[in-house]
Amino acid sequence: MANITKKVSWSSRTDESAAAWEGTPLLNGSEQHSRQLSGGGTIFQIGRLSTVDLEEEITPEEDSARGRPKEIPHNEKLLSLKYESLDYDNIENQLFLEEERRMSFMSFRCLEISRWVICGLIGFLTGLIACFIDIVVEELAGIKYQVIKENIVKFTEMGGLSISLILWAVLNSSFVMVGAIMVAFFEPIAAGSGIPQIKCYLNGVKIPRVVRLKTLVVKVCGVICSVVGGLAVGKEGPMIHSGAVVAAGVSQGRSTSLKRDFKIFEYFRRDTEKRDFVSAGAAAGVSAAFGAPVGGVLFSLEEGASFWNQMLTWRIFFASMISTFTLNFFLSIYHNKPGDLSSPGLINFGRFESESVAYNLYEIPLFIAMGAIGGFLGALFNILNYWLTIFRIRYVHRPCLQVMEAMLVAAVTATVSFTMIYFSNDCQPLDQDHAEEYPLQLFCADGEYNSMATAFFNTPERSVRSLFHNQPGTYNPLTLGLFTLTYFFLACWTYGLAVSAGVFIPSLLIGAAWGRLCGILLASITSEGSIWADPGKYALIGAAAQLGGIVRMTLSLTVIMMEATGNVTYGLPIMLVLMTAKIVGDYFQEGLYDIHIKLQSVPFLHWEAPATSHWLTAREVMSSPVTCLNKIEKVGTIVDILSNTSTNHNGFPVVVQVSNSDEPGKLCGLILRSQLIVLLKHKVFVELAQSRLTHRKLQLKDFRDAYPRFPPIQSIHVSQDERECMMDLTEFMNPTPYTVPQETSLPRVFKLFRALGLRHLVVVDDVNRVVGLVTRKDLARYHLGKHGLEELQLAQT
Amino acid sequence: MANITKKVSWSSRTDESAAAWEGTPLLNGSEQHSRQLSGGGTIFQIGRLSTVDLEEEITPEEDSARGRPKEIPHNEKLLSLKYESLDYDNIENQLFLEEERRMSFMSFRCLEISRWVICGLIGFLTGLIACFIDIVVEELAGIKYQVIKENIVKFTEMGGLSISLILWAVLNSSFVMVGAIMVAFFEPIAAGSGIPQIKCYLNGVKIPRVVRLKTLVVKVCGVICSVVGGLAVGKEGPMIHSGAVVAAGVSQGRSTSLKRDFKIFEYFRRDTEKRDFVSAGAAAGVSAAFGAPVGGVLFSLEEGASFWNQMLTWRIFFASMISTFTLNFFLSIYHNKPGDLSSPGLINFGRFESESVAYNLYEIPLFIAMGAIGGFLGALFNILNYWLTIFRIRYVHRPCLQVMEAMLVAAVTATVSFTMIYFSNDCQPLDQDHAEEYPLQLFCADGEYNSMATAFFNTPERSVRSLFHNQPGTYNPLTLGLFTLTYFFLACWTYGLAVSAGVFIPSLLIGAAWGRLCGILLASITSEGSIWADPGKYALIGAAAQLGGIVRMTLSLTVIMMEATGNVTYGLPIMLVLMTAKIVGDYFQEGLYDIHIKLQSVPFLHWEAPATSHWLTAREVMSSPVTCLNKIEKVGTIVDILSNTSTNHNGFPVVVQVSNSDEPGKLCGLILRSQLIVLLKHKVFVELAQSRLTHRKLQLKDFRDAYPRFPPIQSIHVSQDERECMMDLTEFMNPTPYTVPQETSLPRVFKLFRALGLRHLVVVDDVNRVVGLVTRKDLARYHLGKHGLEELQLAQT
Repeated sequence: MANITKKVSWSSRTDESAAAWEGTPLLNGSEQHSRQLSGGGTIFQIGRLSTVDLEEEITPEEDSARGRPKEIPHNEKLLSLKYESLDYDNIENQLFLEEERRMSFMSFRCLEISRWVICGLIGFLTGLIACFIDIVVEELAGIKYQVIKENIVKFTEMGGLSISLILWAVLNSSFVMVGAIMVAFFEPIAAGSGIPQIKCYLNGVKIPRVVRLKTLVVKVCGVICSVVGGLAVGKEGPMIHSGAVVAAGVSQGRSTSLKRDFKIFEYFRRDTEKRDFVSAGAAAGVSAAFGAPVGGVLFSLEEGASFWNQMLTWRIFFASMISTFTLNFFLSIYHNKPGDLSSPGLINFGRFESESVAYNLYEIPLFIAMGAIGGFLGALFNILNYWLTIFRIRYVHRPCLQVMEAMLVAAVTATVSFTMIYFSNDCQPLDQDHAEEYPLQLFCADGEYNSMATAFFNTPERSVRSLFHNQPGTYNPLTLGLFTLTYFFLACWTYGLAVSAGVFIPSLLIGAAWGRLCGILLASITSEGSIWADPGKYALIGAAAQLGGIVRMTLSLTVIMMEATGNVTYGLPIMLVLMTAKIVGDYFQEGLYDIHIKLQSVPFLHWEAPATSHWLTAREVMSSPVTCLNKIEKVGTIVDILSNTSTNHNGFPVVVQVSNSDEPGKLCGLILRSQLIVLLKHKVFVELAQSRLTHRKLQLKDFRDAYPRFPPIQSIHVSQDERECMMDLTEFMNPTPYTVPQETSLPRVFKLFRALGLRHLVVVDDVNRVVGLVTRKDLARYHLGKHGLEELQLAQT
Repeated sequence: MANITKKVSWSSRTDESAAAWEGTPLLNGSEQHSRQLSGGGTIFQIGRLSTVDLEEEITPEEDSARGRPKEIPHNEKLLSLKYESLDYDNIENQLFLEEERRMSFMSFRCLEISRWVICGLIGFLTGLIACFIDIVVEELAGIKYQVIKENIVKFTEMGGLSISLILWAVLNSSFVMVGAIMVAFFEPIAAGSGIPQIKCYLNGVKIPRVVRLKTLVVKVCGVICSVVGGLAVGKEGPMIHSGAVVAAGVSQGRSTSLKRDFKIFEYFRRDTEKRDFVSAGAAAGVSAAFGAPVGGVLFSLEEGASFWNQMLTWRIFFASMISTFTLNFFLSIYHNKPGDLSSPGLINFGRFESESVAYNLYEIPLFIAMGAIGGFLGALFNILNYWLTIFRIRYVHRPCLQVMEAMLVAAVTATVSFTMIYFSNDCQPLDQDHAEEYPLQLFCADGEYNSMATAFFNTPERSVRSLFHNQPGTYNPLTLGLFTLTYFFLACWTYGLAVSAGVFIPSLLIGAAWGRLCGILLASITSEGSIWADPGKYALIGAAAQLGGIVRMTLSLTVIMMEATGNVTYGLPIMLVLMTAKIVGDYFQEGLYDIHIKLQSVPFLHWEAPATSHWLTAREVMSSPVTCLNKIEKVGTIVDILSNTSTNHNGFPVVVQVSNSDEPGKLCGLILRSQLIVLLKHKVFVELAQSRLTHRKLQLKDFRDAYPRFPPIQSIHVSQDERECMMDLTEFMNPTPYTVPQETSLPRVFKLFRALGLRHLVVVDDVNRVVGLVTRKDLARYHLGKHGLEELQLAQT
């Protein structure tokens, strides 16, 4: 009890819900919706929040004016109430059970086959999208670099290279402008890599508009623009989001955006099934991005799954395999080597031959040290990006400002790159074996090229590969050091812009640069050059360390790196490095994705309840009193409850009143807002059913047709007469909701909730009367802070 | 309802429980313990079994005498009641909660660190064991083959090769005899690969003696003997079992066999934690066996885990990594290349260079066809082995018979090998590059060797590798065909002997042989030899197909194969092949491990309830009436209940009686047999506590010290006076057991049970009164048979 720290915080609201992901301020608090917590006769009343008087508070703007920027952004201590949950639990009402019981074994088998077909389709389409992105980026970047190169060659002789610089900057800015306009004005949710959003979705949080077709289109075009625009970004992260959108679309057999319903896969129109397919889509995305099908499966499981199901995992694996295979196949045609399936994935680290790169036991401490450096640099990256994001949330939230910032970054990136290349005098002989794609001679002698240009004057993917594989001696240490420094800040500035782009490749690039630097330094200080001779090995370790320090994934990232290098020898060092990076990084700051999730106040459920939360019980955690409905309820009451915007509940326990009406009723079921809406829309009233004998019985199909965009209650007209009718919920409610007694400890509640992917958990007393309701927010509130268990405040944003 | 098929079956008993794994007949029924099912006012009385009158039944022996062997073995339609369950759910009683609440955040962190340390240790020790096995096998097999080779060389010149044959057969038989004696007489559970047993353990079934130190010792020595004895077995499968035993031992910080308690890791002395570590151990075993750390993790998850936890998975991965690393490191020293970490795993498929083995799109149908062949051959293997196992269960259950059978197989294996080599005239030139370990010249010309001998006169691991990598033309088709045929039957005969040995390598070897044969045939019928030139590729695909057809794993096996070849290019083909093999194989017969699990009547829970089981509810499924205890219960009553051998329950709901004592009481907790035993042992009686003020309060430690071998109730003496005392269970019972209403459908009950790893699930009515109890057996009973949903019978074996 002593280790609960209370935080006074601002409640906040956003102008529109989805924009919150983009940078709309969550901070300028204006309304305070203090959450109603009864806590009845509980022992600890920690749930009761004191309403903060905003007049007495320092507003964020004032505070920042006093130069205390670190104290202001407390919105990561808030939990937004605006996010709805997904329901991973089947609603086993009478309709559902009747349908299932009618189905024969063959129908179940057909369903299983359709699941496989859908997963195959998901993989295929995801692979195609990856292929499309890759080819367009290659072509456009090729043209761009060719134009600039010719221009530079021209002006190197004539003098007046500033014209080349301007050309480069303008070209970059225009590409980025197009991308940024699409994202900022048309679909803000498409910004960034989309990985935080998909993480949230798989965790069970409904992020508005995240899996729509429009989002996909903007994402794909946006990522092409930002990569071609020369930003310090990669095209890999967005593939995960793209795969997820494809999955959500294909599995539902219809597109609400296109207003087309193919009347197929109707059985899968519910959260449970959809989430399974989205997992497969995300895995297919990873698989296409890195040529890492197993890594994709593990990514999906690490980020999303709670209950592990063998068949589901196989399907996910199948989707991943098909996706990398499709990409590989079409790229082989594009590269005029049809049928050669040896380059899976958008990024390919190239082949590390095990002979040349075998490591030795005494190198392991070195690797671990590099992991620590990576963790530290990653934490630094995250802290800087955190401040920047706070700044953006506060000042750069209008779309036109966002576009301008993106263009500015593009221009600066070009300028910095140009300056670095210009002032570098690191000339290397042109080698026939390692022919650079766009060798820049600049001021080097004939037959030589500028080595700084290989790093800057190239797509990041190629730069990574050349850092891994170029001959020892290709780069001099100064080049690498300067490159690391500039690219670090550029990448940090870039992440969070209103463009769709990933952070994987820039992280790898930064890491590869300083890793190679480490390798070169090691080789120079040791006499026996042979073992340390291969700086590419250290580049790989550095890349892993830096990426691990930023995103803090371990298992899936290890496997992704292993698969991308096509070599399992490096499994242990990479794993050790990623572990070290995570431990060191976590000491300073959370992972980049978690920071962004927290800044959006998403009620994200971690794997387990905080360790020290055993003294909390369901009684303290639950929301109470609960709005309950009777089995046969008046329509007017239902409409009023649904219209009440101050509570805005989504699930209602159905009760049978006992004789004494003051007492809470006995639980006999649970019904969702969405179900009630459908019932109201179809006017399933007892009186009407009696009068119209031909009245069509409501079927599951009606609920599926309305899924997932159930109309708001306001759009449903209920006349005054109808308000007096009665509704019989028996057939539609879930008659066997999961329940827990009041004394259940928080970890136990958490485990049940998380393992089964619940949305509502009813708390009952010893005679099965409803006393409270536990939802996602009630559990996500508690987290381990620096001072022990902390409780987040809930905000109606 | 219509699709429930009733089977009349024999109930059975075994002489001793653990021996059932070994072949003690389950069939000679003598007692019929019909399970008491009330089914009260239920709709379907499917739970009530008709007691079969044994006099009217044909006994198995009579039946088999009439030549209908296929009709008899119906024990896979039984579910044994002798297996207890593990409890993956924490018992959150007052003692536990008090301890957890006392613990600071730092203590939890320390616990977390110890978990990592334990996993590291598990990996290290597993790696060491693998290393030990490998080195001993190498040395002994080296000596054996050298001796025989010299002998053969001698007698080839002199004539009288039958003496060599006898030498070979005697050497093999003696090694196998030693191994078989250890297994059959000392620890029958150590027979076979141990994978079925570990699968059951991870599934939550307590297999007696499976994770004891003695088992480990017998297993390790046994596997050395059987591999050196030249049986058609591998040393890889047993590594998984060894890893699991190591994990169970290390994590408990004591050895009951050695009677040593190191007083460490006491916190982990419960099923929940132990099972987590055993998962890690199994993964470490796979990792050491195949050099496949990721495959190991996936194996553990595919076979065991239900609830996926990120931290747990990372620890499992860590153990796997350490294990392969340890093995690699020590083997590198043994091979005089210290520090060269390029050969992870006991079996190493050698490096497939991607250039030489890149496959093409039009080869995929061929691969799929090979998968189908593998599935068919696998099913054939399984059917033959199934009949053989039935035969063994009936006739070869005495240890001395088992030893004799094993020796016979060893002698036959030697004889067959010798005959094959003797009559083969496939001579190949001795190549400097691919120097065979033990080239047999026999009747070949000088500078040539007998190619049949590379397959037979070698450890199976080497044979696999030479089939994968030897130059095209090394084997002629006839050699391969004969080899496949003989090895198939030998391997089939060998699996299930009372020796500890794995089936992975023989399966791979059979597959590699016919796969290479396919490759050679393909090359000969196509004109353009270049693409089809590499039969090693087809050997790999064939090996995957055959192994998949026998064991029916897909995801983990794909990854294991990928990691063992060190090449991710083959991911998709291997996966397609494994899928095809599984689909084709499942059409005929289950996987080998599943057959053996079923033959032992283990209540194994699959991933999901059968698809067509929605019409069953908790009311029909549950056991009822339930023996309940009062919160304050008389000692005599408890002793009587625990001593009742006819019920032998392990969990008892604790109830509060309502005024009318006829009605069932209200649920207020759940207590386990093991807890009651400890309470009785420490005489925690209300009266004693009052009289002795200094009476030490019972702590969690007392329960942990007794774990896992709680004494039987018979060993606890309770005097007549004490029988009149009362016991207060409040502090010790789990006050918040999970419950479901009676109307809950079977899939819903199943999901809750499986996802949380429960042992007991209380069924309550609408006012929280206990009406039934669902345990593992109640759920495992239902399975999908050929004629729809079938119900297994319960037997007190």
